[in-house]
Amino acid sequence: LTEHIVKSFEEELEQLSMNVSKMGGLAEAQLQAAIDSFTRRDLQLADQTIHQDQVLDDLELLIEASAVQLIALRQPMALDLREAMSPIKIAADLERIGDLAKNISKRTLVMFDDYDTPARLVQGLTRMGKLALGQLKLVLDAYTSRDEALARKVWASDEEIDEMYNSVFRELLTYMMEDPRKIGVCTHLLFVAKNIERIGDHATNIAETVSYLVTGHRLIEERPKGDKTSTTPVPAGSN
Amino acid sequence: LTEHIVKSFEEELEQLSMNVSKMGGLAEAQLQAAIDSFTRRDLQLADQTIHQDQVLDDLELLIEASAVQLIALRQPMALDLREAMSPIKIAADLERIGDLAKNISKRTLVMFDDYDTPARLVQGLTRMGKLALGQLKLVLDAYTSRDEALARKVWASDEEIDEMYNSVFRELLTYMMEDPRKIGVCTHLLFVAKNIERIGDHATNIAETVSYLVTGHRLIEERPKGDKTSTTPVPAGSN
Repeated sequence: LTEHIVKSFEEELEQLSMNVSKMGGLAEAQLQAAIDSFTRRDLQLADQTIHQDQVLDDLELLIEASAVQLIALRQPMALDLREAMSPIKIAADLERIGDLAKNISKRTLVMFDDYDTPARLVQGLTRMGKLALGQLKLVLDAYTSRDEALARKVWASDEEIDEMYNSVFRELLTYMMEDPRKIGVCTHLLFVAKNIERIGDHATNIAETVSYLVTGHRLIEERPKGDKTSTTPVPAGSN
Repeated sequence: LTEHIVKSFEEELEQLSMNVSKMGGLAEAQLQAAIDSFTRRDLQLADQTIHQDQVLDDLELLIEASAVQLIALRQPMALDLREAMSPIKIAADLERIGDLAKNISKRTLVMFDDYDTPARLVQGLTRMGKLALGQLKLVLDAYTSRDEALARKVWASDEEIDEMYNSVFRELLTYMMEDPRKIGVCTHLLFVAKNIERIGDHATNIAETVSYLVTGHRLIEERPKGDKTSTTPVPAGSN
């Protein structure tokens, strides 16, 4: 009987873990679609991305409910407990990534409906989006293979996205000053950039969760923080 | 013996709940300080707010660890399970509120160090901040008294902050177009406004958690979403 219960617990953990991977795949697809619709000005794809976000919301609730039930009924300890707990954390981050992808798509609809968007700025944001997508893919791989070294690698390279954000931010501000008619569209681009930067933060959160899951220790160093835009002076403007 | 265990479980739940209230009080104080330092241009207070954020981070970890241990060791069901689980959710929202307050303070340091900030815009943001603070206070009261009606009231009035955000957003854009030299400082104000709007969202999340805690049912209607700035066209600009 004991063996049966042990087996079944492992099966339940595996089911939970598979649901997290499934949700991760969907979040990845949503982010990919948000970036593509933004880059290609594909309004239909943007619209689709907005409507599919509900699937991620539902999956988060499902994962949370089954994880909590597992913890309550099985009383796991140590690694088993971390295995049962980390899906709740990761699902919360994936749900937020889905929200942010949805918001990018919403802005895509407005921006390209009404305005000409400077191509060079769109390219910069596309690059930034692809970087965040790459981070998300890597950290989901790290979760699937319980690869702490890979998780730590993702965790350490969040700064790249932040640096790109800093440069896009400065470029956007300069652009607005040179042509105030573009302030409206540039403000949307500013928030798209900020959304991508936040998606990078959530990938970093997931990396921390995976590391803690595998090792049982928290990554103690102060998390890398490269977003300087809230603390560095902005260009003073020339006109 | 059974009675002893039951008593001790209730005590542990109470301890957990008190830690959430303590963390709530600190998050409130952090938000208050962030708004005050912003309004009064009090750089010392802003600096203090930034450094105290660590306390909230530590409390979140403590609450999460004790809640998980409680669930694993006591196997609570139904209301008891929700009582043990909700602190994890609420602590996560409070931690994010602390982060956003910290970010407001960081921007306060930069903005008032280098720039003249239009007084009328500061007033609008101060009002918005006070509204968010009021929402946070109410929802923490709702948690303390397990008052579902009050939680639902907070949940339903998130739209007020969103509407204020929409008007501040439009005002900021207009202001930038009229005086492009102010684009730098207005961009910071834009993000301060966005931070406050997000704090309102987290208060709404907490309201959902409290409602679920008390009733065992999720607030099913689509959550009120009044932030239209990602989907409405922005002023086209006149110069």
